[in-house]
Amino acid sequence: MPDIGALLSPATVAVVGASPDEHILRGRIMHVMGSHPYKGTVYPVSRSHDEVLGLKAYKAVSELPETVDLAVLIIPAEYVPDTLEECGSKGVRAAQILTSGFAEDTGGAGGDMQQRIRDIAEKYDMAVCGPNSEGFANMAADFCPTFSPAVDDPDTPLLPDCRTDGQIGVIAQSGGMGFAFYDRGRPKQLPFSYVVTTGNEACLEGFQLVDYMLDDGGTEIIVMFVEDIKTPEIYTRVAEKALRAGKPIIVTKIGHSQAGQRAAASHTAALAGSYSAYNAMFERYSVIEGRDIEEIVDIAAGFSFWGDRLPKGKRVGIITGSGGAGGWMADTAVAAGLSVPPLDAETRAQIDAHLPSYATSQNPVDGTAGAIRDVGYANLAKMTADSDEVDAIIAITSARNASRYEADLEDMTRVARETEKPIVFNSYTMPKPEGFAVFGRAGYPVFTNMRNTAHVVACMADYCAFRETFLKIPEINTKPEIPSGVADQLSKSGPTLTEYEAKQVLTAYGILTPREVLATDATEAVEGAASIEGSVALKVQSPDIIHKTEAGAVALGLEGGGAVRAAFDDVSASARNYNPNADIQGVLVQPMAPPGREIILGINRDDAFGPMLMVGLGGVYVEVMRDVVFAPAPVRPEEARAMLDRLQGVALLHGVRGQPPADIDALVALMVTVSRIADDWRDEIAEIDLNPVLVHPEGEGVTIVDALIVKAKHV
Amino acid sequence: MPDIGALLSPATVAVVGASPDEHILRGRIMHVMGSHPYKGTVYPVSRSHDEVLGLKAYKAVSELPETVDLAVLIIPAEYVPDTLEECGSKGVRAAQILTSGFAEDTGGAGGDMQQRIRDIAEKYDMAVCGPNSEGFANMAADFCPTFSPAVDDPDTPLLPDCRTDGQIGVIAQSGGMGFAFYDRGRPKQLPFSYVVTTGNEACLEGFQLVDYMLDDGGTEIIVMFVEDIKTPEIYTRVAEKALRAGKPIIVTKIGHSQAGQRAAASHTAALAGSYSAYNAMFERYSVIEGRDIEEIVDIAAGFSFWGDRLPKGKRVGIITGSGGAGGWMADTAVAAGLSVPPLDAETRAQIDAHLPSYATSQNPVDGTAGAIRDVGYANLAKMTADSDEVDAIIAITSARNASRYEADLEDMTRVARETEKPIVFNSYTMPKPEGFAVFGRAGYPVFTNMRNTAHVVACMADYCAFRETFLKIPEINTKPEIPSGVADQLSKSGPTLTEYEAKQVLTAYGILTPREVLATDATEAVEGAASIEGSVALKVQSPDIIHKTEAGAVALGLEGGGAVRAAFDDVSASARNYNPNADIQGVLVQPMAPPGREIILGINRDDAFGPMLMVGLGGVYVEVMRDVVFAPAPVRPEEARAMLDRLQGVALLHGVRGQPPADIDALVALMVTVSRIADDWRDEIAEIDLNPVLVHPEGEGVTIVDALIVKAKHV
Repeated sequence: MPDIGALLSPATVAVVGASPDEHILRGRIMHVMGSHPYKGTVYPVSRSHDEVLGLKAYKAVSELPETVDLAVLIIPAEYVPDTLEECGSKGVRAAQILTSGFAEDTGGAGGDMQQRIRDIAEKYDMAVCGPNSEGFANMAADFCPTFSPAVDDPDTPLLPDCRTDGQIGVIAQSGGMGFAFYDRGRPKQLPFSYVVTTGNEACLEGFQLVDYMLDDGGTEIIVMFVEDIKTPEIYTRVAEKALRAGKPIIVTKIGHSQAGQRAAASHTAALAGSYSAYNAMFERYSVIEGRDIEEIVDIAAGFSFWGDRLPKGKRVGIITGSGGAGGWMADTAVAAGLSVPPLDAETRAQIDAHLPSYATSQNPVDGTAGAIRDVGYANLAKMTADSDEVDAIIAITSARNASRYEADLEDMTRVARETEKPIVFNSYTMPKPEGFAVFGRAGYPVFTNMRNTAHVVACMADYCAFRETFLKIPEINTKPEIPSGVADQLSKSGPTLTEYEAKQVLTAYGILTPREVLATDATEAVEGAASIEGSVALKVQSPDIIHKTEAGAVALGLEGGGAVRAAFDDVSASARNYNPNADIQGVLVQPMAPPGREIILGINRDDAFGPMLMVGLGGVYVEVMRDVVFAPAPVRPEEARAMLDRLQGVALLHGVRGQPPADIDALVALMVTVSRIADDWRDEIAEIDLNPVLVHPEGEGVTIVDALIVKAKHV
Repeated sequence: MPDIGALLSPATVAVVGASPDEHILRGRIMHVMGSHPYKGTVYPVSRSHDEVLGLKAYKAVSELPETVDLAVLIIPAEYVPDTLEECGSKGVRAAQILTSGFAEDTGGAGGDMQQRIRDIAEKYDMAVCGPNSEGFANMAADFCPTFSPAVDDPDTPLLPDCRTDGQIGVIAQSGGMGFAFYDRGRPKQLPFSYVVTTGNEACLEGFQLVDYMLDDGGTEIIVMFVEDIKTPEIYTRVAEKALRAGKPIIVTKIGHSQAGQRAAASHTAALAGSYSAYNAMFERYSVIEGRDIEEIVDIAAGFSFWGDRLPKGKRVGIITGSGGAGGWMADTAVAAGLSVPPLDAETRAQIDAHLPSYATSQNPVDGTAGAIRDVGYANLAKMTADSDEVDAIIAITSARNASRYEADLEDMTRVARETEKPIVFNSYTMPKPEGFAVFGRAGYPVFTNMRNTAHVVACMADYCAFRETFLKIPEINTKPEIPSGVADQLSKSGPTLTEYEAKQVLTAYGILTPREVLATDATEAVEGAASIEGSVALKVQSPDIIHKTEAGAVALGLEGGGAVRAAFDDVSASARNYNPNADIQGVLVQPMAPPGREIILGINRDDAFGPMLMVGLGGVYVEVMRDVVFAPAPVRPEEARAMLDRLQGVALLHGVRGQPPADIDALVALMVTVSRIADDWRDEIAEIDLNPVLVHPEGEGVTIVDALIVKAKHV
């Protein structure tokens, strides 16, 4: 195991390529490191200088007076592999490579050099971060091997003096973005533990660093900028570990828009694409996706201040001195999925005793500017928080001039310590730097963006609820046996299983499919129809005809032998006409399905994360509204149910306009089983497409109207 | 006409209630006014002081040495009416009332006093702003009769020195919010013309002030905080005037969440509610709704810098020195409705000549930090903007330390002057105050919120496109004649018109309805059915049975005399059973409608804005997805078409999955006519509900399957 501690918290470090020239990156890193009182030993390594910023410089790593824990490499790309080899052979445990020009330089030899770096790191079991990175900062150690200007000010301590808990660890593939989180968060009095920029992640991956920080102790919140996840298994293990530890991960994953939609035979695949897989993987472990830098910093701030007392629900009390701001925040809160319920009579009476007649104790509690000054935010927040009707408090203020809060500070500090419900501040004016400090010292985050304020509270409540449910789900470590016959069916079918073949697989897993007959001539079809109650459908079965309706290879609602016979000839002729070379297995004779809610259900295999279960509202609406959700297979019943709740149109399943509720239990059972099939055969099955599935009224089950399985290419 | 000039730009002003005590509002206002070099004459009026901040004070308005233009009243509420009367009788042209305790104090005499203020203002034709306001600021005149701390700093000029055009006028019912826009915008180098806070708007309304600012000359952009619009006609006239002048209005209207949904018999009404009417009124004139303070300020900034060169489309070029930030912004741009197309080969070649091999000239153009420093943002932006593939440029930078741009400043200023396409900056680090100034002087806004950055560009492009279309629509000043017979039909019907009666109204307006027969006995029904081709539907007609299906008063798909006769008896019995006292007019015999896209179309009368046309995707989806849009009636064909484009599911009308496109022209014609009916009978008709309307394939028209008209209560 590479020693990440040697990387992030070294006692001795060599900066290979160090220069005294502050105008170049190799000099700036020395300058930045020198701005902070790092207690370890720094050895500049330089071919051209004997001394760098007052430190004796050495010609090579091999000439250093001791074996350092960490080598920071900021030398031309072509020298990096040999130097890393030299470090490894000398026993250096870790390296941070800042140099660019590796895999990201698609024109040259960068890819090969990056492979060499990987090989050397493996050979010596070194913890290697980068290349193409901007370095990192370890705040507690005052150690900043980076050229980022975000940490170059010697007069700004890396950690705010008033805050030590709720520390935030940043891990970012982009150097600019990684330090931007710090740049935005530090003035808001947020304590950061680390900012690590990982660049190309040739060796160490982001989630390995997360793993380290989870164990490290100091870090309570993780912020990440992710371009890709190279090893899904690391992600899965670490994301679950973080969730169990109650240490939220807030992430942005770029590439939504460029993610090419993979071409595929089924709808499931067409609607997938890699971003939806990432999104599903994040949802699974309540990894919070942030939409911009400020939103991420604000979410982190919420958890940093109130991570130990998350809201138990989404009902907020709003207190304000400006009626206009209170109304606006109420709208904003509701838009963010929060509710703003009226307070109970007892709480209102208690508040009213302190307010003038033209103020109001309904929710929002509009104290008016004058009364707020007299009562104090602390008391008003406390009285409102005491109501059983709310789970969190949003206090609106104008924090422009922080001095006006000095008198209230003692009360505010006490309330922050004692309250069981989180209280966050929103300032409609822009606070001066002292403003953030005053509130920070008292124990409150101050947000300046209204939508973020509401969204942060919603995120904290969602995380809290999700985690509570997650911890309750029993872990299942035994896998049910794989039914017999499925392997045979898969091996004897071609690349695409017909509906008939696909249903053999489903049936083997205990999924009920309508009684149906595969007829090879008209007489068999007529006999099959006679054995089925009610009218029937005929469908030509051929692995070469996937879009049966388009091919005219389907006939519906047939009654009586004559109609069935005629339809058999008709659909057979259409199919042959559509594709003269099609291998036709026969014609499936099925009962017509009773009515139900149309659902699309499927599996699509993501290149990185394996099989993804997709569910959506079927029919043309799925294409227009794109109302589909994904989750990694296998899913447990609780997860399947949560997927349905994430559909915009979930109310359709619960029954609207006098229609009965649909059989959600049966749908959930089907989702679980289909995801189990995909998991059992993750190397063999590329896609499953059940479209449509009709979900009948409660207690009446589901009908799979059409089914398709596509095998993985190599099988 | 009240003289708003006397209010906002007085040469002489009395402050009634002025005090030297800075700790009370009456003193703070004097302090704030004294912080700026106002050139007019200020007379303090005070009962208890002979001098206030060095100015001679007078005991009463009647004792002033001259008739002032403006009286600012900051005295206890009970003295306000008499003092205003005194001002009026002395010839004072305008008053700003800051005092609270009027209509907003629902417990006391505030409402009556507010009415007295209104009466006095009318009697003397005075321009009266307030009460319950925070005063205002006229930046060009350095005149700030307000106690807002946002303008109390004598060292910060009210206008930035580098910017004089693109001025922003703020009008806000909330004092806190009004000055918050200024507080947020001034550090970003935005030039404000006025901040006017209007409080209860007892006399002057917000849009009267807009009207004044449109004529005044200096103001190019209006920012508003609106609680309600008291006179819709003023809004309509002024909003159209602003749009024609190309002066955008950016607004927040609070109360979305509290807006109670009015109970009503039809779906149209249930889906309406007053916010949707406001939203529709805003959409009609491209009044831009902002979601929070910062977003509004950023949108204003976009127009302030680039109002004269709005983007002609929604394709953006992104230039960046940080690859991570570029990718993230590309995602953000696409999420905001922009596109980020690849640049053309010629542009790429031109850019590539300046970039290292590991940079990229695709879009986003990732110049890398080093190359950007060499080429300069100005040149890179210029080269990218020259591409025919983009309409605007988003340049991403770290503006933390503005000094690094000094060298590039001359080029940046030149490019800002010469470019035909807007260029906006986004900084991922937080700029210091000088940063905004450097960019502002060069001619660029700097945004720090990524989503706002993209949204601002989208807003500017939308406004530009909407205005272009709006200016092209010919104004129609003649109204077609009202068809005869409609008045009769409305007067002879009860409060709710049955389908049969409602269709008489539609038919009078030339709307084609299916051939149908109102049968009063089974024999008439059988005869009626025989005269119709194909199967028929029977529907009991009674003003007392609105939900016919629920009452079992509908039978569908009947063929042959026997079936019709049996169904007639059946539906009649069900209806009588459902409501024994129902007045039954007969049973409507109709052909079954051919298939089509289900649409809900209706009219709902908003209390403030009159009849609103609603259109949505019909069926259960309308209830689940709430995919409906509103527009004030009457609508022109272009507006009806734009309404359909705003539906999330509009693609359903254009044809998906091999289904033919629907007859949108016929639907548009129906929308226009229904809105005309509502306009013609705006006092008589409260609701129209056509649900469903089936829209058949192109060229095959629409079928109104059911129709309902509800008369206004008083008719």
